[in-house]
Amino acid sequence: MGAPLSLLWSAGSVAVVGASPKPGALGRLPVEFLQRYGYRGRILPVNPRGGEILGLPAYPSVASAPGPVELALIMVGAERVPAAIDDCIQAGVGVAVVGSSGFAEAGPAGARLQDEIAARARAGGLRLLGPNCIGAANFHTGLVASFSPMFSGDAGLLPGNAGFVSQSGALGYGTVSLAFERGLGLGWAVTTGNEADVTALEAMLALADEPSCTAVLGYLESLGDIDRLRALAATGKPVALLKAGRTEAGARAAATHTGALATEDRVVTATLRQLGLVRVLDVDELLDVGDAFDQPRRPAGPRVAVITTSGGSGILAVDAVHDHGLVAARLAYTTRDELREIVPDFGSVENPVDVTASVMRDPTLVSRALSVVAADAQVDMLVVCFCVLTGDDVTTIVDALAEVAAQTGKPVLVARTGAASLAPGAAAALRAAGIPAYQTPARAVRAAAALWEVSRTHHRSVRMPGPAGPLPSDGVTEAGLKRMLGEAGIGVPRGSEVASQTSAPDAVRALGGTAVMKATGVLHKTETGGVALGVSPDAAPEVFARLAALGDGTVLVEEQISGGVELLVGIVSSPLGPVLTLEIKVFRLLSGHRGAPVVDLAALTELICRLQELVIGWPAGFSLDLNPVVALPDRAVVLDAAYVAPASTQIPDAAQGPASERSPAAAATAAAAAEASRAEES
Amino acid sequence: MGAPLSLLWSAGSVAVVGASPKPGALGRLPVEFLQRYGYRGRILPVNPRGGEILGLPAYPSVASAPGPVELALIMVGAERVPAAIDDCIQAGVGVAVVGSSGFAEAGPAGARLQDEIAARARAGGLRLLGPNCIGAANFHTGLVASFSPMFSGDAGLLPGNAGFVSQSGALGYGTVSLAFERGLGLGWAVTTGNEADVTALEAMLALADEPSCTAVLGYLESLGDIDRLRALAATGKPVALLKAGRTEAGARAAATHTGALATEDRVVTATLRQLGLVRVLDVDELLDVGDAFDQPRRPAGPRVAVITTSGGSGILAVDAVHDHGLVAARLAYTTRDELREIVPDFGSVENPVDVTASVMRDPTLVSRALSVVAADAQVDMLVVCFCVLTGDDVTTIVDALAEVAAQTGKPVLVARTGAASLAPGAAAALRAAGIPAYQTPARAVRAAAALWEVSRTHHRSVRMPGPAGPLPSDGVTEAGLKRMLGEAGIGVPRGSEVASQTSAPDAVRALGGTAVMKATGVLHKTETGGVALGVSPDAAPEVFARLAALGDGTVLVEEQISGGVELLVGIVSSPLGPVLTLEIKVFRLLSGHRGAPVVDLAALTELICRLQELVIGWPAGFSLDLNPVVALPDRAVVLDAAYVAPASTQIPDAAQGPASERSPAAAATAAAAAEASRAEES
Repeated sequence: MGAPLSLLWSAGSVAVVGASPKPGALGRLPVEFLQRYGYRGRILPVNPRGGEILGLPAYPSVASAPGPVELALIMVGAERVPAAIDDCIQAGVGVAVVGSSGFAEAGPAGARLQDEIAARARAGGLRLLGPNCIGAANFHTGLVASFSPMFSGDAGLLPGNAGFVSQSGALGYGTVSLAFERGLGLGWAVTTGNEADVTALEAMLALADEPSCTAVLGYLESLGDIDRLRALAATGKPVALLKAGRTEAGARAAATHTGALATEDRVVTATLRQLGLVRVLDVDELLDVGDAFDQPRRPAGPRVAVITTSGGSGILAVDAVHDHGLVAARLAYTTRDELREIVPDFGSVENPVDVTASVMRDPTLVSRALSVVAADAQVDMLVVCFCVLTGDDVTTIVDALAEVAAQTGKPVLVARTGAASLAPGAAAALRAAGIPAYQTPARAVRAAAALWEVSRTHHRSVRMPGPAGPLPSDGVTEAGLKRMLGEAGIGVPRGSEVASQTSAPDAVRALGGTAVMKATGVLHKTETGGVALGVSPDAAPEVFARLAALGDGTVLVEEQISGGVELLVGIVSSPLGPVLTLEIKVFRLLSGHRGAPVVDLAALTELICRLQELVIGWPAGFSLDLNPVVALPDRAVVLDAAYVAPASTQIPDAAQGPASERSPAAAATAAAAAEASRAEES
Repeated sequence: MGAPLSLLWSAGSVAVVGASPKPGALGRLPVEFLQRYGYRGRILPVNPRGGEILGLPAYPSVASAPGPVELALIMVGAERVPAAIDDCIQAGVGVAVVGSSGFAEAGPAGARLQDEIAARARAGGLRLLGPNCIGAANFHTGLVASFSPMFSGDAGLLPGNAGFVSQSGALGYGTVSLAFERGLGLGWAVTTGNEADVTALEAMLALADEPSCTAVLGYLESLGDIDRLRALAATGKPVALLKAGRTEAGARAAATHTGALATEDRVVTATLRQLGLVRVLDVDELLDVGDAFDQPRRPAGPRVAVITTSGGSGILAVDAVHDHGLVAARLAYTTRDELREIVPDFGSVENPVDVTASVMRDPTLVSRALSVVAADAQVDMLVVCFCVLTGDDVTTIVDALAEVAAQTGKPVLVARTGAASLAPGAAAALRAAGIPAYQTPARAVRAAAALWEVSRTHHRSVRMPGPAGPLPSDGVTEAGLKRMLGEAGIGVPRGSEVASQTSAPDAVRALGGTAVMKATGVLHKTETGGVALGVSPDAAPEVFARLAALGDGTVLVEEQISGGVELLVGIVSSPLGPVLTLEIKVFRLLSGHRGAPVVDLAALTELICRLQELVIGWPAGFSLDLNPVVALPDRAVVLDAAYVAPASTQIPDAAQGPASERSPAAAATAAAAAEASRAEES
């Protein structure tokens, strides 16, 4: 629907609605920036008073400006935005960027106004970025459709290969300025603010589709669009996401900020991991990973060789290798033999290889040591640690590192734990050679882990949901649900539903003479006396009578299963798809610890996998509780099951539901997941 | 023993043994540095050839130089160090710094050489720093007894208030250069290398004793001296430690590097936390915390108010508040009322307080907003977040922050997530105002957490070990051990030791007619049939006969206890004192989850506390296993207990044992603790 989002960075003409000739006015900045950074398209200031702004004629409306107008940046007060939207639609604008505040973030009235402009834009075929955002920029062409103060500085732009998208405007451009400061060039930045229409994920996907974009970095406060996440992963470009609001308090703050609904954080982590999208926890980590993505080499495995001039750095690096789930490469004997000829005896030829500072002063030895380690087939990546690097060493080292990286195709990352001023040219020289450099060994290793994270997914297929299985009806009985589970190959107790007193004894006899009888259509059966254990054929009629009266008239007669280990398996919907919660901390019990029974783990695993297959296509909003599942020495059985159908109204997608309709009730699913989580973690 | 360590930074005369006139030679550097940085004491180059070095006369030996010589820096090959040590002793030197490599880090021969120089120094009353270190420096006086290349640069020194000690030389001076680069001044640096004599902890303690030293930062690879850690904590000065070798692989690398024995990492963490010493995980975190220590204000509690100009920063800050165990302050209603008059409706008056960028442009509003929040009695610390901060804002903001900090005495920390070049004066102005500034909200909050960590220990007393309780004898029987536990008020089963077949029935009758009978003096009783359950008085004689034959002739008759929840409680020695391991992940079972019994938690807690009191003074090297302890609804009882006495040779202290005696056997204790750990975590 509507114009392509890429107009945000490729438009040939930009209207600035609310442009002002007044120095210092916010509405003057975009015009100033577009001129300053050499934008070659047409700049069209819009001001009802007309006149001239920075040498350009101002038009009373977008529609009155000479067309076509592809992009409009709206900088007027919130109450005047609806009219500006209409004006843009009339002018045939493709994308409108609304920089104004005072919408969903300002309370219910603002949320209604936001819904209104979103509806008008949708009806008119206009795409909307914002409101409450700070616009977008193309750092290659100088198309700065933004009023961020970062563009007021003298620092200039550093065009590069990665795209950056941020839900937060101020933090977003702050991050851009930090990227430029460290020498990490960016091609494009987009801030999405309240996301009345365009979400950060959609913008990331559009950037990933740009052929010249090599990686995408993002700051997000909500994440609820599994289809776009999958599409983003499918582009194959490396992606790193800083998802804020990880904690309950943080999520609450995020909801206040942009009105976004929370997705339980464990679900976010699991989803990103499954898709091979890197999750980072802070801004500096996002940029560290961006630096790693900004060189072409990718590791074939997780095995890291650490080469260091300082034992201390080596230890810190190896600690980090463990922290990030990488593997310290075990060097081949021949590698160690060769290193022994290079490294003095107060160094180390084991990983971490401590070549000592003395080796680093000899260009030939440096080169040999690095080549030997890099050539080892046990090594997938190199992390090379220096401390105080002085001017004299730099050329030698950079040349050797560049050669090794080029020859082997293995990523080489550097940690330089010393002041940049001691070797002022080093940072630029390393970057030019495609060697990302970090301040500490742990940060270098963390970036290496991100490289492996985006590389290994190519070796693995992510399972996509197939067609939906049969769906339980609302109010399905325990017997009905168990029948459905049984048909899906999931273990359930043998048994039958009995509708009359006279047929009860036979039903018990069919199960070997002792059975469990359960009332049906009763909540909290156990607590209300709706379950009878150890029922004999003789006792069956009387028990039937009692239970039938308690429930809906029929009684479930099942084999009695004793022993085993009980587990809870729950499935609830989330914006990112169904989430299965299993109490895995009882794993020890399952393994025969302390006299507890050894159970059939393969059967339990199969039960869970079959369950996933059964529900993967079910519509959002349901919940299914298998409580308990009993794991036995020879099988796994669902003893009780309960299903809650989706509410008649679907839960709105976190990122796309109308701002004014996000109610506490919609958070029920997340709360249920959190409940399960607490049970697991207590 | 020997001279005070403070000579490392206060010596009035320094000999440089191995000084060379050759430009570029390592032995020339210290002389050059002492001159360059304005050291006012006497510089005494020592070179067997005599002559002149950088305008100073060189002496053929330390003893032949004009005395007194307080400090000597030894820069000769390892094989010539013993003679240099003798020379220093003869000259009456107080402290010798051995910069040479080729000792314990180079293998067994080097380790023997290290033992030899340590023994000679000890015998001669000479303190030894190193070997394999890069010396020490006093940044106030220019006493640079070091050859680190960082002093070759043009950056100059930045004298400050904190002391820094590093076991690693290269990483240490790299860290110093990073501190100076960010504007964090240091008073003193000491690198300790192989620690043949002076350990990093001793050096930290000596620095903490300097009246003008306000905080101590350290990088360590081993940590085994609980007494010095306690003494360091007792100085009351804030301390932050980067302890490397956290992981198994990292610890192995550390052992290779300096030959240090590992202390199990969980024990390190618990000990530091107990003592109120801050543990950090990376170099940049160490310096972040150093910045926080470098201002005088301390929080009275953990409650943080976040004030931000960007919603995104506020969310990241609140996430970090949770991550680091701090509390997001709940602002008073009156505070929020006042904020409503300042903050526009698209901001937020809840914590995180989003004042929006518009407020930050008005000096009066900035000042009012900060004052209102800082004055709230619910607030202990302020974390103020900016993104793009441009030159124009800086003066306003810094003035307001400084005023608030001074008026309330509450720490104020700033996050500036934007390029420094956009407001070049900001960093220096903030630092001058006593406001530490960080690149991201999470880093600011992490530093705030360290401030609270060092402040809250003043509210809490650390329990020091009392006199040793009675010590079990080696080979103590189960009955003997249980008697001792019982006398310490720890629950044990009722029972008696029976030595004859005829007295067995009465012993069973005394316990109510059913008892457990156990062979004594038998390992793995359960597996070898040495335990009989449910023994009646009639069966007692026959059971006695069987069990007595199996063991040492006596049989333990005990009340039979069934039900309850079984736990393992183990205590093993570590270099930092006895470590108690308790399987706390079964806590849920103790709380009556899923039909399991509710147990007497108070009794269980008391059992553990009494156990601690019992063993706290026991000598290093023992282990005590209570397996199982049974928690019952009304009491907690030790069902079985085993004790292993310390080996005849004590385990050498990790940091101080002779380098050549560190054997794999000495790691047995740590391995046992690791075993317990695996059990707990599986």
